[in-house]
Amino acid sequence: MLENYRLNEKRKLSLSNIDPEDTAGIADKDEIADAFDELKDKLEEHQERLYASKRNGVLILFQGMDCSGKDGVIKKVLAGLNPQGFRAESFKKPTPDEASHDFLWRTHKVAPPKGTISAFNRSYYEEVLITRVHGVIDNKEASKRLKHIVHFEKMLSDSGITVIKIFLHISPDFQLKKIHERMENPEKLWKFDPSDLEERRYWPAYQKAYEQAFKATSTKRCPWYIVPANNRWFRDYLVLRIVESAMNSLHLTYPDVDMSQFPSIAAGETETQPASQ
Amino acid sequence: MLENYRLNEKRKLSLSNIDPEDTAGIADKDEIADAFDELKDKLEEHQERLYASKRNGVLILFQGMDCSGKDGVIKKVLAGLNPQGFRAESFKKPTPDEASHDFLWRTHKVAPPKGTISAFNRSYYEEVLITRVHGVIDNKEASKRLKHIVHFEKMLSDSGITVIKIFLHISPDFQLKKIHERMENPEKLWKFDPSDLEERRYWPAYQKAYEQAFKATSTKRCPWYIVPANNRWFRDYLVLRIVESAMNSLHLTYPDVDMSQFPSIAAGETETQPASQ
Repeated sequence: MLENYRLNEKRKLSLSNIDPEDTAGIADKDEIADAFDELKDKLEEHQERLYASKRNGVLILFQGMDCSGKDGVIKKVLAGLNPQGFRAESFKKPTPDEASHDFLWRTHKVAPPKGTISAFNRSYYEEVLITRVHGVIDNKEASKRLKHIVHFEKMLSDSGITVIKIFLHISPDFQLKKIHERMENPEKLWKFDPSDLEERRYWPAYQKAYEQAFKATSTKRCPWYIVPANNRWFRDYLVLRIVESAMNSLHLTYPDVDMSQFPSIAAGETETQPASQ
Repeated sequence: MLENYRLNEKRKLSLSNIDPEDTAGIADKDEIADAFDELKDKLEEHQERLYASKRNGVLILFQGMDCSGKDGVIKKVLAGLNPQGFRAESFKKPTPDEASHDFLWRTHKVAPPKGTISAFNRSYYEEVLITRVHGVIDNKEASKRLKHIVHFEKMLSDSGITVIKIFLHISPDFQLKKIHERMENPEKLWKFDPSDLEERRYWPAYQKAYEQAFKATSTKRCPWYIVPANNRWFRDYLVLRIVESAMNSLHLTYPDVDMSQFPSIAAGETETQPASQ
């Protein structure tokens, strides 16, 4: 099933051919409720082994239009992880200090160390998306940056970091419905940002910039996943399957500890009572 | 109930008078199972409001002997929080760079920004505990540092950060049982550190250093809580109550948004369809 949503070759993709309402033939949330819980348990086991063995790290990067559910999926799918080996990072408008560095600097700083998982809410891909749509960079610069991204991700991968790239795919109508929900619900109004409405006008340009980024950066080792996200429950289920499957393929194990390196313990001196000072 | 476990005056305390087996008269885990789930839901609601209003932050600091359950309580009580507004920080042996700064530097750097919660697994208190027990600093230096800590916490508190300080109180026998469990279980063996056995010999010195730290740094605004922790379920329940109660007392609300500042939206222009480029 996952391969239907994975782009691991540099083939041309048109987002308009992918249905944001798709649920892979699954009728509703109830149908996958048990599977969802089982996958979450498995994911927590993988995390424990990842943390114990400290030979791999995992970077899960989320991109998508406003209201595509980047915050939501991090909460629904990843909130149960042990917080000591998991971190969510989000990237807003760069500070002057961040903007004065190369475009990979601020995200690289918070890359996951081995033994841990990080979720990026937005990422260095913004530097070939919003910048391109608004003409901050030209096509030549975008093309250079896309190559730098491929090299950067390959370097991470060579260093034991699994890079999982997820695009949450929604329709413009769905976005508008969500913006209205924010405006009408006093508990969601704080999330409302009038610039979201303005940014909607650039929808086709964003879709085009995304398509070019997917084509340039989908590789066998660091593929993009296009996740239909109009149905929240399917979005969550598919993301959970993608992450669980990627971690499962690492074949993580608890490290062996050679107790013979501690001769006094092997000799039974573990009952030592506290000495008075 | 909470006040029984709170130290908010600078009174002398003897840890030996506090029973690590105490469960406040609660028979077992089942008795508080429903209350635990309700408190977790409330805590998540508080977090949502904290994140939305961005006027307060929360620092929950955990101290305790090896095997007292600092990792465990963070996972059991706090793993359900939205990872985008919550972070766990743990402090190991300082790096040379960290050690070349003042003793508050590395922890201050990762203090929670407003709108978020941080859990510290160990903290700047180590700098008046392990350093003191092993003679790295003398009493005069310890006394100075304790005053600096009081001022630092008051400054955080004045800046809108609620500081919750929790000591997980276990018995030496309980610790030894846990060390043995780690040695005998292949899935826990990676947590075993032979220096834990060595460090046990300094138990009474640690208890004394802790007592002095509590006396010097328990204030009305930033009290210490002594949590009996031989029973994991009671430890989790009490910590959850402490944190929920502290956040409840902040009376957090969603921010008001004045929609009249967006005249075009008020005039009904929210239906804007994406423009072609």
